[in-house]
Amino acid sequence: MLEAKTEIIAVGSELLLGQIVNSNAQFLSKQLAEIGINVYYHTVVGDNAERLKQAIKTAQERANIIIFTGGLGPTKDDLTKETIADVLGKKLVTNEEALANIQDFFDKTKRVMSENNKKQAIVLEDAEVLKNETGMAPGMGVEVDGRFYILLPGPPSEMKPMFTNYGQQFLIDKLGIQDKIISRVLRYFGIGESKLETDIEDIIDAQTNPTIAPLASNDEVTLRLTAKHTDEAEAMKLLDEMEEKINARVGEYCYGYEQTTIMGELKKLLHEKNLTIAAAESLTGGLFSEQLTAIEGASQIFKGSIICYTNEVKEQLLKVSSGTLENEGAVSAACATEMADNIREITGSDIGISFTGVAGPDSLERHPVGTVFIGISMTDRETEVHEINWAGSRNAVRTRTVKFGCHYVMQMLK
Amino acid sequence: MLEAKTEIIAVGSELLLGQIVNSNAQFLSKQLAEIGINVYYHTVVGDNAERLKQAIKTAQERANIIIFTGGLGPTKDDLTKETIADVLGKKLVTNEEALANIQDFFDKTKRVMSENNKKQAIVLEDAEVLKNETGMAPGMGVEVDGRFYILLPGPPSEMKPMFTNYGQQFLIDKLGIQDKIISRVLRYFGIGESKLETDIEDIIDAQTNPTIAPLASNDEVTLRLTAKHTDEAEAMKLLDEMEEKINARVGEYCYGYEQTTIMGELKKLLHEKNLTIAAAESLTGGLFSEQLTAIEGASQIFKGSIICYTNEVKEQLLKVSSGTLENEGAVSAACATEMADNIREITGSDIGISFTGVAGPDSLERHPVGTVFIGISMTDRETEVHEINWAGSRNAVRTRTVKFGCHYVMQMLK
Repeated sequence: MLEAKTEIIAVGSELLLGQIVNSNAQFLSKQLAEIGINVYYHTVVGDNAERLKQAIKTAQERANIIIFTGGLGPTKDDLTKETIADVLGKKLVTNEEALANIQDFFDKTKRVMSENNKKQAIVLEDAEVLKNETGMAPGMGVEVDGRFYILLPGPPSEMKPMFTNYGQQFLIDKLGIQDKIISRVLRYFGIGESKLETDIEDIIDAQTNPTIAPLASNDEVTLRLTAKHTDEAEAMKLLDEMEEKINARVGEYCYGYEQTTIMGELKKLLHEKNLTIAAAESLTGGLFSEQLTAIEGASQIFKGSIICYTNEVKEQLLKVSSGTLENEGAVSAACATEMADNIREITGSDIGISFTGVAGPDSLERHPVGTVFIGISMTDRETEVHEINWAGSRNAVRTRTVKFGCHYVMQMLK
Repeated sequence: MLEAKTEIIAVGSELLLGQIVNSNAQFLSKQLAEIGINVYYHTVVGDNAERLKQAIKTAQERANIIIFTGGLGPTKDDLTKETIADVLGKKLVTNEEALANIQDFFDKTKRVMSENNKKQAIVLEDAEVLKNETGMAPGMGVEVDGRFYILLPGPPSEMKPMFTNYGQQFLIDKLGIQDKIISRVLRYFGIGESKLETDIEDIIDAQTNPTIAPLASNDEVTLRLTAKHTDEAEAMKLLDEMEEKINARVGEYCYGYEQTTIMGELKKLLHEKNLTIAAAESLTGGLFSEQLTAIEGASQIFKGSIICYTNEVKEQLLKVSSGTLENEGAVSAACATEMADNIREITGSDIGISFTGVAGPDSLERHPVGTVFIGISMTDRETEVHEINWAGSRNAVRTRTVKFGCHYVMQMLK
């Protein structure tokens, strides 16, 4: 197999003006890494034929795979394929299928196609046309003098599906890549990154296939397992075995796979057990309820919440006793307990969860910023209260509080 | 003045693996555009001395300002300054001030400085040292053979303040930039982009100084005015005059400046008028209250809310009459009115706002997705209800609903 040296060239003056970030290069780099193709350079150049030409020549000296994004549209500024054709000494020809696709696009939106749109159906001769399923301009893949050139549109909504569905396969075929590479992300909560890495240190040190990549962010740790095998089923088996080995040690903290969230897993669990939840939110100001209802499928598990930002609302609407508020304060285990119990009863839900504490920037009732009480009330069980103290911004405190709330409810239900 | 041709070189293998996006290049491009400096290329290269050396040589052929980010840290991978020193034939020397700063950093965090950290205090001879106020590794600016080289650290939290506070001034001084360039962003809500542009078309067409750049996103339109003048006060005057000219036509839709939000402006107005607000949230599920309390300073204007996701909660907790729910339905002007009136009374607030409607994905009570009623109740005024119908995802419907809610309250208060 050819030793891949890839350069990704993004064409567009809007990148050089800082109006947008080059997220296309990041996406492509990630996708290429997953099939074992090295990326050596990213380049950004403006909508300028002369500078683009020079950039292509520079890339030819140092790369054997050159991927372009942007400049395939219908306007005068779009000059990527014309410039590449010029450098490679290739003709441009109209692709009938692409033209029909563009015509179809206008028909569907009931607009008349202007003449300049036909320009988008023009492709490099001998190129493999990469279909644009979410837009008009087709992409291309072509081999010239032992180098591979791939042309992709600039808008990420068009570029991403085109590369995933067609561009990647073009490279796999042309480079004769045999291995299937499959990844799986395991998500952990309630365990710190260093503790997790220490617990499985010998497994990480001995990794070969699958590889193990830990990543910590937003109070969570993920492990990305990546297995390589010519047979997809075998690669999957390697992942299964590694997952089992790791989770024999730290499985109690593993809450899900891939892009799931703790809130998403809590919702799944509530649906499975056919339970409803309601919240009494003070410092979180509605964040728990908002996240619970942000994604569809909340109406069977959620009736409503009370946001009680003042003691007045805690007392009158949520029926927290004035004695508790006077003697213990709003930021107290006693208040969290009453809030959780009462919201459950008031709404007739199976579970009541409460959040009270100090989000900051000022301290409250002599508690420092970051003091939080989370109460969880369930039928026929003693109400649990978790006191937590953490550092961080107002936003971080609120977000962590909601995550830990979900985590504690799941622990009680399991 | 030298005609600036800038290349920004980001050094770091994590960029080529797609683990992070090159947001540094975007930030620097924007900052450079604001002082009138052209950026012609962005390059990303890995932590590899040979390839970095070649990238520097390529940049020397096509640029006269070369800005590096990344590779100034203490580890073996960090080789930016060593490689540049090599290409430029410059010595590396220890900078005592930088060394003291690093020592100070360790003292403050009560850790012992390991030997490799001293490497960070080494700088190119003859370079102007750019102070790192948020980290350890200092930056550098140096002129060699008519080209300007600027070295900045990779972490955005260090790079951004260093460039804004020192790097930009280095360029302004060295290039003899006389003009001050000042921007002002005007924010509009409740008017579409095309309507706004049509209303001020002749002003946009005649723009010279200030320039006018419209941008639409998330139901808002912004106009960025940028004025240039050797005298800052004169540049400011140009902005004032242009703002007045534009807002003589579309001022009723202009709600604020720069990075403000509609929620932020509503909060400001409530504080000014010393008023409190409470919400009854159905389809928005807590989003209004969450946004209201996300940023500090809500406790004087906000007592609490009821999230009433089911008719049961609307009836029992929010006291919406069963007649209204049976005859008109939960998605109705009548229900929105009662919700707004009742939440105001229950919480003893000056203003009650209600949100009821269909967020999707399924229709409700035979109303299509996107049907929304917003109710606003104030003391001594007739309760207003706004019916809106819009297309979009669940998330888009909820977000727009909250924005329009803020907008309507502000209109009533003005």
